[in-house]
Amino acid sequence: MPTYKAPLEDIRFILSDVVDTSSLPGMTEAATSPVLNRAAEFCEKVLFPLNASGDIEGCHFESGRITAPKGFVEAYREFREGGWSGMSCAKECGGQGFPLLLEFVVGEMIGSANMAFSLYPMLSHAAYKTIEKYADENLKRAYLPKLVDGSWTGTMCMTEPQAGSDLGLIEAKAEPQPDGSYKITGEKIFITAGEHDLCDNIVHLVLARLPNALPGVRGISLFLVPKIFPESGARNSVICEKLEDTMGIRASAVCSLKFDGATGWLIGEPGRGVRAMFTMVNETRMMVGLQGIGMAEVAYQNAAAYAKKRHQMRAITGTKKPGAPADPIIVHPDVRQKLLTMKSLVEGCRALAIWVGREFDVSIRGADPKKKAAATDFVALMIPIIKAFGTDMGFDAANAALQIFGGHGYMRDNGIEQFVRDVRVAQIYEGTNGIQALDLVMRKMTEDYGRLLRTFFHPVARFLAEEKDNKSLAGFRAAFLSAFNKLQMASLYINTRMPANTDEAGTGAADYLRIFAYVAIGFLWLKMAKAAASKIAQGGERAAFYEAKLKTADFYFSRILPQVHGHYRALITGAKPIMDFPAEAF
Amino acid sequence: MPTYKAPLEDIRFILSDVVDTSSLPGMTEAATSPVLNRAAEFCEKVLFPLNASGDIEGCHFESGRITAPKGFVEAYREFREGGWSGMSCAKECGGQGFPLLLEFVVGEMIGSANMAFSLYPMLSHAAYKTIEKYADENLKRAYLPKLVDGSWTGTMCMTEPQAGSDLGLIEAKAEPQPDGSYKITGEKIFITAGEHDLCDNIVHLVLARLPNALPGVRGISLFLVPKIFPESGARNSVICEKLEDTMGIRASAVCSLKFDGATGWLIGEPGRGVRAMFTMVNETRMMVGLQGIGMAEVAYQNAAAYAKKRHQMRAITGTKKPGAPADPIIVHPDVRQKLLTMKSLVEGCRALAIWVGREFDVSIRGADPKKKAAATDFVALMIPIIKAFGTDMGFDAANAALQIFGGHGYMRDNGIEQFVRDVRVAQIYEGTNGIQALDLVMRKMTEDYGRLLRTFFHPVARFLAEEKDNKSLAGFRAAFLSAFNKLQMASLYINTRMPANTDEAGTGAADYLRIFAYVAIGFLWLKMAKAAASKIAQGGERAAFYEAKLKTADFYFSRILPQVHGHYRALITGAKPIMDFPAEAF
Repeated sequence: MPTYKAPLEDIRFILSDVVDTSSLPGMTEAATSPVLNRAAEFCEKVLFPLNASGDIEGCHFESGRITAPKGFVEAYREFREGGWSGMSCAKECGGQGFPLLLEFVVGEMIGSANMAFSLYPMLSHAAYKTIEKYADENLKRAYLPKLVDGSWTGTMCMTEPQAGSDLGLIEAKAEPQPDGSYKITGEKIFITAGEHDLCDNIVHLVLARLPNALPGVRGISLFLVPKIFPESGARNSVICEKLEDTMGIRASAVCSLKFDGATGWLIGEPGRGVRAMFTMVNETRMMVGLQGIGMAEVAYQNAAAYAKKRHQMRAITGTKKPGAPADPIIVHPDVRQKLLTMKSLVEGCRALAIWVGREFDVSIRGADPKKKAAATDFVALMIPIIKAFGTDMGFDAANAALQIFGGHGYMRDNGIEQFVRDVRVAQIYEGTNGIQALDLVMRKMTEDYGRLLRTFFHPVARFLAEEKDNKSLAGFRAAFLSAFNKLQMASLYINTRMPANTDEAGTGAADYLRIFAYVAIGFLWLKMAKAAASKIAQGGERAAFYEAKLKTADFYFSRILPQVHGHYRALITGAKPIMDFPAEAF
Repeated sequence: MPTYKAPLEDIRFILSDVVDTSSLPGMTEAATSPVLNRAAEFCEKVLFPLNASGDIEGCHFESGRITAPKGFVEAYREFREGGWSGMSCAKECGGQGFPLLLEFVVGEMIGSANMAFSLYPMLSHAAYKTIEKYADENLKRAYLPKLVDGSWTGTMCMTEPQAGSDLGLIEAKAEPQPDGSYKITGEKIFITAGEHDLCDNIVHLVLARLPNALPGVRGISLFLVPKIFPESGARNSVICEKLEDTMGIRASAVCSLKFDGATGWLIGEPGRGVRAMFTMVNETRMMVGLQGIGMAEVAYQNAAAYAKKRHQMRAITGTKKPGAPADPIIVHPDVRQKLLTMKSLVEGCRALAIWVGREFDVSIRGADPKKKAAATDFVALMIPIIKAFGTDMGFDAANAALQIFGGHGYMRDNGIEQFVRDVRVAQIYEGTNGIQALDLVMRKMTEDYGRLLRTFFHPVARFLAEEKDNKSLAGFRAAFLSAFNKLQMASLYINTRMPANTDEAGTGAADYLRIFAYVAIGFLWLKMAKAAASKIAQGGERAAFYEAKLKTADFYFSRILPQVHGHYRALITGAKPIMDFPAEAF
C-alpha cells in the first residue's frame, strides 16, 4: 500500500528562503506553521487512508442519489470542522482570512492525499467568490455562510453533451418567472460533486440561455440553482440521472444532472454568465495544477521508497561477483534518472506555484495599485503554464512511478496505477491542456505587445544581473541562459507570425508552453540553488538537505532543461505541414 | 463505442512498395492477400466486438479456475479453426509454414482488435519453438502438434515475487525423480494465460533450480510442466492461487501459480534454462512492440473519426461570424498536430517493424550464410527499439486519443481509456522499456566494435548515396541528415565512454534508444516518400493516398524528427549528476 508524508520541509524552504512571502499579511512563519502542521496531519491520517479504499469501492448511485465511499462523510465532517472550507474566505463571512497562497499550499497536500476527495469542496470556493461578487444581498445572506463553513458545497454546471470546450454551444434554457426567479431546463454532464451525501445541500451555478438571447457565449447567463430550497427544505427539480463511469477519481461524485424546470436566480448581468463563471477560472486552474503537483509528489515518494527497498540486479559499476546479493534498484541509472526527473520537476513546479500564489494574493489584496496590476498580469500569464505543465508533469510522474514498480505497479493492489488513472483527468478538466496552450499564446502573450510577458522576463533578467557574480550559480548559468534565449526567440517567432498566420501560432502553442514551463522552473531552480548555497555557506545543521537541493538543480540544468532545444526546433519547423493536410486523409 | 478497420491499404503499400519482401518464400501478394483479408475480417468482426465487453466483464476466478469473459471461448475456437495458431509453424507439425513476417503483420491487427485476447495464444508459439529446439522426441511428439493446432496454449513461468527483471533471484526448485521427471515447487506470479478455459490444457515452461545449482542465472534450468498429463488426463499439482487484479487487459487471465511438487521434464541442459527460454525473446518482444503499434493504430483511427464528427469552436483562421456553426475539431491545429504525430509514428513504426520482420525470416531461413548472419545482427539490434519505442508510442497515442476525446475520453463508456490501461502493460512486460534501452546500449551497440550498428548505418548510408539526386526527397534530406549525424555522434559518445563509465552509458540509454528510433523511423519515411513520389509520377488512381504519404513524411521531418536534438543534448549533459546523488536524499 502506498504511503504519503506531507513535504513540509520542502514547502518551508520555499516559503522561507526562496520566494519572499513575508510581505503578505498572514504569511509569517508563526501564523502558517500550525496551519501547515494541522493540514499535514489531516492529509496523512484522515484523507490518504481513504484514497485506495475510495477507488476500490467507488461512489454508489441509486434512485437519483449518490453516496460517497465509506469514510468520506466522516472525513468531510472533519474537513469542515477543521475550518478548511473557509480558509481563505473573509472573516466576516465566517472564513479564516488566510492568504490564498496558504490555501494553494494546502491544496497540493490534499491533492496528494486524496484527489477524489479534493473535488467535493473544490468548487465551493469558486461558487462562494462568484456569489460574493455578482449576487444580490438576499442570495449572499442565504448562501455564503453555508458555503464558507462547508455545510453546503458548490458546483459549476457548464458542460452539456454537445458543449464541452465550446461553451457557446450551451443549450440549457432559463424562463423568467413573475416572482423574479427563473425556470432552468437542460442537461448538464460531467458535473463534479453534482450530487452526493457529504452535506445537506448543493449550490449549483448553472449556465443557461434566456429567451431570445444572442447566439454564442454572449447569450449565456448564470443562475444559482440550489438542490434544496433553504427556506422550505423542499427539493428543487434537479435530477441526478447518472453517476459518470470514469477512468479514475472513482470516489468522486461526477454526474449528469437534468434541470427539469428547476428554480434559480440570475447572478450578474444577462448575457454575462460565462464572464461571471470565469471570474474564478484562475483560481480553479491553479488548484488543478496543484493537483498535478500533488500527485507527482505522492508518486515520487512511493517510487523512491520502493526503489530503496526492491532488490533486483547488481549495480552496473562495482564488484560483480556472481551470486552476490542484488542491490536496491535505486543504484540503477535508469531508475535514478526517472526519480530525479520527478524530484526536480515536482520541487521546481511547487516553487513556481508558490511564486504565482504569492502574486495571486497581491493581485487581489495588494495595496500598491501598480504592483497589483503587475501581479494580475503575472498571474494571468502563468496560470495556463501551471495548469497544463503541472498536470502533464503529474501524469508523467505517476507513470514513471508505475514503471519503477514494474509489473507490481500494474497491479491494482499496490495503489500506483490509481495515481495514473486519477491524475489523468486533470489534463482535461478546467480547460484541456491544449486550450491552456492556446490561452497562453493567443491571449496572454500577445496582449498589449507583450505586457504580460514582461512580468516574467524582467524579474528573470534582474535576477541574472544581480547574481552575475554568484559563484554558486556558475555551473548552471550557461544552460539557463541558453534556454532563456530560446524562450525569448520563440516568443518573438510566434509574435511576428501571429497576425498573419494564427494557425501557425496555434500549432506551436504546446511546444511554446513547454519551453516556457521549463525555463520558468529553471528560474526557480536558480533561486533555490542560490538559497541552498547561501545556507551551506552559513553553516548549520541541515547541510545534507541543502546539498541535495544543489545536486537536484544540477540534474535539472543538465538533463531536463536541455529539452527546450528540441521543442524550439520543432516549434520553428513544425507548423507548416499541419494546416494543409486534407481532413479526409486523416 | 470505438471502431476498428484493419489498415490493409497501408500494410500493402509497405509490403509491396517500401520494404522489398518478394525474396521471402511465401510472401507473394497472391499468397498473402487472402490471409490478410481473412485476418482483417476476423479481427474486425470477431475480436474487436469483444474488446470492450471483455474489459467490463473481466475474467472470473473461482476455486482455482479462471474463466474468460463471454465470447472469448468461441472467439478462440474460431482463431484455432482459422489456423492462426500455427501460422508460421512448420507444415510437418501441422502448421501453415508462412513467414514470421506475416504473423507479425497479423499480430499488429490482433493487438489493435483485442490486446487482452492476443495474450492467450501469444506465448504458445514461444513454447512451441522452445520445445522444438530443446526437448526430446517424446515431449515433442506429445506437445508440439497440440500447441500448433491451438488445442493447448503455452506459458512462460519466470517471474516470482522477489524475481522480476532479475531472473537470477528465482527460487523455484526442481527435485529429480527416479523416473527421469522432476518435482517442481515454487510460486510464480504475473503468468499470462496461466489458467483459463479457452482450451483443454496448458503447457507451462517453468524456470527452476536443480539441487546444488550455481547461484544466479547459471543455476536455472527449464522444465516443461503440463496443467494436465496428456496420457492420463490427470491434473498436475499446478494451482492457480489468484487472478491478478490488473490496471488493464482485464479480459486476459494473468495469474499467480503455485507449483506444489508438480511433475515436469527438463528441457535443454541443466543451468541453461534462461538461455533456452530466451531463444524466443526476440520474437515475443517483437510481438509486444507490435501490440504497441496496433494500439496506436486503433487509438488513431478513433481519434481521427471523433475529430471529424465532434464540433467545437470555429477554426482560428477564417470567417468568424458570431453564432456561426462550430467546426469539427479537426480544424484546430492542436488536434491536427496530435493526429499527425500519431499517424506519422504509427505508419513509420509499422514500416520499420516490417523491415525488421523481413530480416527476422532471413535470419531463420535465409539461404546465404552471410546474409543470414547480417540479418541476425540487424534483428538483435532493432528488437529493443521496436519493443520499447513501439510500446511507448502506443501508450502516448492512446493518451493523445483520450485527450482528443476530452472529458468523453475519460468516461469508460467510450472505450478510449481502456486503450490507455491496456497498452500500459506493454511498456513493462517482456523486459521493461528501461531494460530494452540497456540491452541496446550495453550489449547490442558495443558488440564487436559496432558490428550490429553497421547493419543499420550501412543500408541508410547506401540509400542516401543512391538517392542523393532524388528530387522528391529534397525537402526531407537536411532534417534527416542532421538527425542521422546526431545518432552517429551519440553512438560514438556512448562507445568512447563505455568501458570507463558504464553507468554514464546506462544513464543515456533511454535517450539513445529514442534518438535511434526517431532516425530509424525517419529512414522508413524517406523510403515511403520515395515510393509514394514514384507512384505519383507514374500516374494512376490513388494519387490522394500517395500525396497523403508525402505530407505525413513532411510532418514527420518537420515536427517529430527534430526532437532528436533535445534528446542528444540531454544525453551528452545529463549523465554526470545522476550517480553521485546520495540514495538517502531521494
